[in-house]
Amino acid sequence: MATAVVLRDLARRLGAELHGDGDCLIDSVATLHNASSGAISFLANPHYRKLLADTAASAVILSREALDDCPVPALVVDNPYAVYARAAALLNPAPPWSGGVHPSAVVEPGSHVHETAWVGPQSVIEDGAVIGEHVYVGPGCLVGRDAVLGESTRLTARVTICHGVRIGRRVIVNPGAVIGSDGFGLANDDGRWLKVPQLGSVLVGDDVEVGANTTVDRGALDDTVLEEGVKLDNLIQVAHNVFIGAHTAVAGCVGISGSARIGRHCMIAGGVGIVGHLQITDNVVITGMSMVTKSITEPGVYSSGLAAQPGDQFNRNYARFRRLDDIARRLQRLERRQKSEDQ
Amino acid sequence: MATAVVLRDLARRLGAELHGDGDCLIDSVATLHNASSGAISFLANPHYRKLLADTAASAVILSREALDDCPVPALVVDNPYAVYARAAALLNPAPPWSGGVHPSAVVEPGSHVHETAWVGPQSVIEDGAVIGEHVYVGPGCLVGRDAVLGESTRLTARVTICHGVRIGRRVIVNPGAVIGSDGFGLANDDGRWLKVPQLGSVLVGDDVEVGANTTVDRGALDDTVLEEGVKLDNLIQVAHNVFIGAHTAVAGCVGISGSARIGRHCMIAGGVGIVGHLQITDNVVITGMSMVTKSITEPGVYSSGLAAQPGDQFNRNYARFRRLDDIARRLQRLERRQKSEDQ
Amino acid sequence: MATAVVLRDLARRLGAELHGDGDCLIDSVATLHNASSGAISFLANPHYRKLLADTAASAVILSREALDDCPVPALVVDNPYAVYARAAALLNPAPPWSGGVHPSAVVEPGSHVHETAWVGPQSVIEDGAVIGEHVYVGPGCLVGRDAVLGESTRLTARVTICHGVRIGRRVIVNPGAVIGSDGFGLANDDGRWLKVPQLGSVLVGDDVEVGANTTVDRGALDDTVLEEGVKLDNLIQVAHNVFIGAHTAVAGCVGISGSARIGRHCMIAGGVGIVGHLQITDNVVITGMSMVTKSITEPGVYSSGLAAQPGDQFNRNYARFRRLDDIARRLQRLERRQKSEDQ
Repeated sequence: MATAVVLRDLARRLGAELHGDGDCLIDSVATLHNASSGAISFLANPHYRKLLADTAASAVILSREALDDCPVPALVVDNPYAVYARAAALLNPAPPWSGGVHPSAVVEPGSHVHETAWVGPQSVIEDGAVIGEHVYVGPGCLVGRDAVLGESTRLTARVTICHGVRIGRRVIVNPGAVIGSDGFGLANDDGRWLKVPQLGSVLVGDDVEVGANTTVDRGALDDTVLEEGVKLDNLIQVAHNVFIGAHTAVAGCVGISGSARIGRHCMIAGGVGIVGHLQITDNVVITGMSMVTKSITEPGVYSSGLAAQPGDQFNRNYARFRRLDDIARRLQRLERRQKSEDQ
Repeated sequence: MATAVVLRDLARRLGAELHGDGDCLIDSVATLHNASSGAISFLANPHYRKLLADTAASAVILSREALDDCPVPALVVDNPYAVYARAAALLNPAPPWSGGVHPSAVVEPGSHVHETAWVGPQSVIEDGAVIGEHVYVGPGCLVGRDAVLGESTRLTARVTICHGVRIGRRVIVNPGAVIGSDGFGLANDDGRWLKVPQLGSVLVGDDVEVGANTTVDRGALDDTVLEEGVKLDNLIQVAHNVFIGAHTAVAGCVGISGSARIGRHCMIAGGVGIVGHLQITDNVVITGMSMVTKSITEPGVYSSGLAAQPGDQFNRNYARFRRLDDIARRLQRLERRQKSEDQ
Repeated sequence: MATAVVLRDLARRLGAELHGDGDCLIDSVATLHNASSGAISFLANPHYRKLLADTAASAVILSREALDDCPVPALVVDNPYAVYARAAALLNPAPPWSGGVHPSAVVEPGSHVHETAWVGPQSVIEDGAVIGEHVYVGPGCLVGRDAVLGESTRLTARVTICHGVRIGRRVIVNPGAVIGSDGFGLANDDGRWLKVPQLGSVLVGDDVEVGANTTVDRGALDDTVLEEGVKLDNLIQVAHNVFIGAHTAVAGCVGISGSARIGRHCMIAGGVGIVGHLQITDNVVITGMSMVTKSITEPGVYSSGLAAQPGDQFNRNYARFRRLDDIARRLQRLERRQKSEDQ
């Protein structure tokens, strides 16, 4: 699928400062270590600077500090990784497709599919759904009744968008993801659980990405909201009425309980659990496998995930933990004794 | 989809005591805060009692204690949240559908689909499967050979029911859920893993709900069992031969290992892990992200999930934890010394 | 589906030493406790040896030590559980199927499906895909463009194999699994996340099994790799560029972050999290719900998962943990004081 560009043109399109011969043809991206002729590479982590000397790349995207060590043509930029991302996209455009509906798809008559949109094989577009311009609905997807997909959104394959969900522009939803399933709303009625109808929906902003097999539940009464630029990795559970602020990134296997409100520009690492009905302010980082049980009002890093030790050491330590309150009390006793001796 | 009911009739149908004008028309449910005219709201959590004064709801479901603060017509009941759930269901009936098979569905000739059941687009009903009365099989589902779906069960969309699984009445299975996939049965054979055939099935009782992308494995020899009224949230893993007792609720991202036996009326919070081959008695609550490693024989609350702290504090504490056995020994040494001084 | 075999023949086919009457007919497998006439059972765990006396099984697979306690015909072998697995497979062959394409499947003209392979209802085989000999593609699967499935591989149902993924021989992929979705590659560009194109693929070796709703992401530039014999349970997240060595088994709900390299013959228990860009050597065991944050260079057992206690005990202990650094400092103070008294 890769295309080819002269380095000089690439520099211009990326807004980069060209150093060295601009005439070579670039047709691919690669790591410094694995690059061969025709590839452009990048140096984002100074740790790998020593790899510049031996790279076989035809050019490298890097920051000004690293320029002197680069034996091949270079594109100097402020943020090499972001510019690399743009170069990679430019050199590897998505396979071409055109508007239309695959004959095996089921498009119900009350729906509206824009003529520039594609509806792939075995997909189902229910009554009242609206599929915008240049939307790509891959194979085996479901777009439920009255759901809306904004311009240039992409359901890669086997995605479920439930009824009434509204999705913005340039959103990517990966295979197996489910957006708008019923939230876990239960009322206890004499020991039995009664289902509480889930009457809200999900509102997904522009430029959101949702990972494979991730689930985002519809709200109970109001909507679950993913603001613009939110990025969700795979196998994440977002419960009903959660709000995730713009440009927050959430790694795999995270669970976010009902009505939690997460700020903007947060980073939530893998395996984190977030309790319901709390608020997390902007610019908060939660490290791996931590559990957030209270609102966080100050930006910063928060943790409770334990790092593995050799099992016998860990078991000895944890055996002590199970009596830590007792240990603390005994320490206090010794301290009081000491104090009384001092008087 | 909402329907409308006169408040007096609603009171009668819900078995509630009407206070105030029973003639107003109710057409929706809403929170106290967001309600507008025509909506009925509810007060379940006394914390929100102060919102009664300013609500624009046409009526409120509440308990007797709160009646005096309610400026609008009220339905007095013992369990406002459960009655709200019933009111919400009554006012928001599921969209109507009738029996039949969508032309794009594949219904194998050896299966039996009741004439009142619906089989949606792109679904597959395999040989020997039995689809009961008023069952709704949404788009893109698979019902494997010899599987049985009881009366009024609902597979919302893109659900996988594997061969031979038996599902009760009024069960709801949400999108992407997989019931009856092979358990993780492996025999080590000189360092290689040999697959152990998974010959049991899954038995799902009446009124169970299974969340989106949740997986329930079939038994190795005997069956995996979800008793009646079990409620499973999204992204839960239920391994082979697990037994979950009636009316137990399990929140998202929980993993339950093979042959664990969980009692009735338990509540298992998000992210919990349960080790295999143990038993948990009835009425046990496991808090978020805990790991259950031994049988629990007494009802009550059990925990091992850690709450997040600011990262640098946590790291300092955890560094000490990693030497906690040493700390405890040093404390014992001081205590012994103290004791010997005392003698 | 079960077939029937004379015990003498079964012994021969399993390479087992027959003790007792070899003429009885065996038509099923069962546990010692639930077996009835015609069933062969097994004793793998010495703990259950006492069940031999009362078993109604027609024969038992066991090791030499247990032979004296066995009142029925026996097959003596070194590894009873592995031999049981083989017997169970032999007595319960998969339902027969023959090559072909279901009329509802979509097989794009540029793909190649071997004449002995089966493509089930509602499946999609995209352009350039290659489906090998005796491959079984169950209902509702997607095999993306240029993906390759090796001989005798089985996609059970509703599996997603993304473009360009290469899968070996005798691989089993369970329902809802997604192999080759985009990795979570993001470049921060002034507070917004830019998608980094994911240009690598996934390489899956022979005899791998992938569990239901598990996700394996494609590499960013190089490939994500599952070596031969790797076994993944359900709801596991394998991020981009992860490498898992041969014959490693991973239990449910595990998350493995990008570029982690895991050795051969490892066992990773449920709910474990593994941080990215680290290496784990061969023959490592990680116990349940642990988090691996650093490379592991020595074989052995590693842990950080906490076992649940009664909630009030746990809360008291954890309250102390939150001040553990302070506790340790106070202990040091007492020790120093003690020491100065000693001098």
